[in-house]
Amino acid sequence: MKLDLDKIVETVKTYLPQKKESFIGLHEPIFNGNEWTYVKECLDTGWVSSAGKYVDRFEEMLAEYTGTKRAVAVVNGTAALHICLKAVDVRSGDEVLVPALTFVATANAVSHCGAVPHFVDSEAKTLGMDPGKLALYLQEIAELKADGCFNKLTGRRIKAVVPMHTFGHPVDMDRLLEVCERYKLELVEDAAESLGSYYKGRHTGNFGKVAALSFNGNKTITTGGGGAVLTNDPEMGKLIKHLATTAKVPHRWEYFHDRVGYNYRMPNINAALGCAQLEQLPRFLRQKRSLAERYQRAFSSVEGVSVFTEPDFARSNYWLNVLLLDEKYKGERNRLLEHFLDNHIGVRPVWTLLHKLPPYQNCPCMELSAAEMLESRIINLPSSAFLEMELAEYDV
Amino acid sequence: MKLDLDKIVETVKTYLPQKKESFIGLHEPIFNGNEWTYVKECLDTGWVSSAGKYVDRFEEMLAEYTGTKRAVAVVNGTAALHICLKAVDVRSGDEVLVPALTFVATANAVSHCGAVPHFVDSEAKTLGMDPGKLALYLQEIAELKADGCFNKLTGRRIKAVVPMHTFGHPVDMDRLLEVCERYKLELVEDAAESLGSYYKGRHTGNFGKVAALSFNGNKTITTGGGGAVLTNDPEMGKLIKHLATTAKVPHRWEYFHDRVGYNYRMPNINAALGCAQLEQLPRFLRQKRSLAERYQRAFSSVEGVSVFTEPDFARSNYWLNVLLLDEKYKGERNRLLEHFLDNHIGVRPVWTLLHKLPPYQNCPCMELSAAEMLESRIINLPSSAFLEMELAEYDV
Ligand SMILES: Cc1ncc(COP(=O)(O)O)c(C=O)c1O
Ligand SMILES: Cc1ncc(COP(=O)(O)O)c(C=O)c1O
Repeated sequence: MKLDLDKIVETVKTYLPQKKESFIGLHEPIFNGNEWTYVKECLDTGWVSSAGKYVDRFEEMLAEYTGTKRAVAVVNGTAALHICLKAVDVRSGDEVLVPALTFVATANAVSHCGAVPHFVDSEAKTLGMDPGKLALYLQEIAELKADGCFNKLTGRRIKAVVPMHTFGHPVDMDRLLEVCERYKLELVEDAAESLGSYYKGRHTGNFGKVAALSFNGNKTITTGGGGAVLTNDPEMGKLIKHLATTAKVPHRWEYFHDRVGYNYRMPNINAALGCAQLEQLPRFLRQKRSLAERYQRAFSSVEGVSVFTEPDFARSNYWLNVLLLDEKYKGERNRLLEHFLDNHIGVRPVWTLLHKLPPYQNCPCMELSAAEMLESRIINLPSSAFLEMELAEYDV
Repeated sequence: MKLDLDKIVETVKTYLPQKKESFIGLHEPIFNGNEWTYVKECLDTGWVSSAGKYVDRFEEMLAEYTGTKRAVAVVNGTAALHICLKAVDVRSGDEVLVPALTFVATANAVSHCGAVPHFVDSEAKTLGMDPGKLALYLQEIAELKADGCFNKLTGRRIKAVVPMHTFGHPVDMDRLLEVCERYKLELVEDAAESLGSYYKGRHTGNFGKVAALSFNGNKTITTGGGGAVLTNDPEMGKLIKHLATTAKVPHRWEYFHDRVGYNYRMPNINAALGCAQLEQLPRFLRQKRSLAERYQRAFSSVEGVSVFTEPDFARSNYWLNVLLLDEKYKGERNRLLEHFLDNHIGVRPVWTLLHKLPPYQNCPCMELSAAEMLESRIINLPSSAFLEMELAEYDV
């Protein structure tokens, strides 16, 4: 039996508002709140750059919203991850365990430390790192010494693990934390996609020592470009702010820097956008959840595909909805992608698994069958919060 | 004889508009042009992030204004420098010659490549790298081999030279280019401070293989935070854009990255600011030049200090005006700084010489007497373009 591509595309098409044949983007932002007021205030006062009250306010709002002790706003999610890894002392020559199935930034941040990404398989239930498989693998290849965990095969220190909450769906953190503890690995959460997602009632980003958020234009809320580091350790918070602001030691006039620092500051004008967007996050999340439920209903009667739902221990932000091809139809993925795009529907596959990319093909990795399977079956559907708003109007 | 601190502060005070005892900043931006219009358009269309026409437009405007073949907008000047060094193939373990007298970002960008900054002395005439002294020094310590220039003392390859146009005043590029050619060194210009500055009639940033600009909030024009790479080599331009945008290979839907890339994209909303600011640059430059001339006149009759003027081969943007203490008064610098600040006048010393900072104190360096002397004598005066506009009103 062949997969009915037309039917699948039509299911989305009749379901989403198709305004004058315009392209429906995968995830687009909406600025319906105080964005203009706040941005205008930046321009009127001349405070657009690194100093200015919106950066402080955005950081406070983020810490409060996520229930963490400290948030540090930075230029983007990649910079946030880089600083996270620096903060837990990942060094040149170390290995860092990252999922094979993630956006390339997760591995790039490791490379930017001079360290080596080491790829871990996913589990189908969460789309994230598989803690059980990781435990078995480490049992085989890892050796605990006084100064940390070492890879017996490469001789390198394994310093940290970076789970990523794929499309907003939380990794099974309790099980992963156990593995990290057993092997003395630092836990850094790549929460770039999971603002608004909870694991067992607690916001993602609270489980590792540090976590990274992204506010790129395609994320649940956006600052144009932006990111943040979250931590529950106030000392770590100070270190992160220091590293992200050229490691300048405060002084009335002297320019003295006590470490190699970074210029990872988020400009005030971007933080102003962030404040306005964060105010609207609860509404965005309601809309996105409702959109996800509608997709689930709409596809429940379509042969050969299903829509991914959050694991039972999680409340997900449903950042990007996942259409999952049945295993027997995985060979149809590319044709279906093309068919969607030809119909002006902004879909995409999941990222090429990182161990297949030229810069990472020689990095260590475990057996990656679950990630391979997911890669061949996932298609992301349009997921902008405002799609639901518009639909609600249709429904009346 | 003691330096008359009061007289110096009064000279600035009576000269600058002192509105209701408010603090006069060192360099503040002004948004009198199309900033609102362009930023609002970003918000109204939803194009605030990496895609959007203002990034392209800003890049085109920058290339045209500077007379270079290609400009690539990035998140800030530090990122611009980092990408420049990557683009000329600076590798981990290389040495890069940088001035001791510069903002810490010049050396940090070298460190971010895993390379080692090697500090060079300044010349009093330009405040920038001294090509003559560098030539003599390299004669002593450098060895040319088939695969490049090597430091005989450390054994490391010396890959590049990064002159910095201090406060907008161009380095003597012809003499420096000669040294670079002789020793097969790549020339990367740190033009972070010199947008609008010309060396022998040609805009700075045209002399090295690549150059970095900054649009930080304290610069001649600002994008909140931002920077750009300039190059006259179209292939290099493509490489830089590729490196700055996660090295993603263009494809209708596939996520494939062929190198370790960076997320150094300037968001569209910041580029919108940049377009509006760049439109006003000619006016800002006229105002800043006029302000510099007034400072020069005002201090010509004050004992113990002088105001730095552009070298004869240059037309400088006068980004930050320099009050130069006579050599015999260099011990008074800190007292004078405090006195200015106590009087609500935003001044600052030059940066602590980089070879004195903890992260760089063990790096190689030549004898640095000119930089030491300049460090002890320089005080930057308030230099915002709008100070002149307001003054002009006073004058009528
Ligand atoms: C999983 C993941 N990690 C990191 C990032 C990097 O964030 P940014 O694009 O803001 O640099 C992203 C988003 O792009 C992401 O999806
Ligand atoms: C000489 C010099 N280099 C590099 C930079 C770095 O630019 P940014 O602050 O935009 O990262 C600056 C400005 O801050 C600078 O003055």
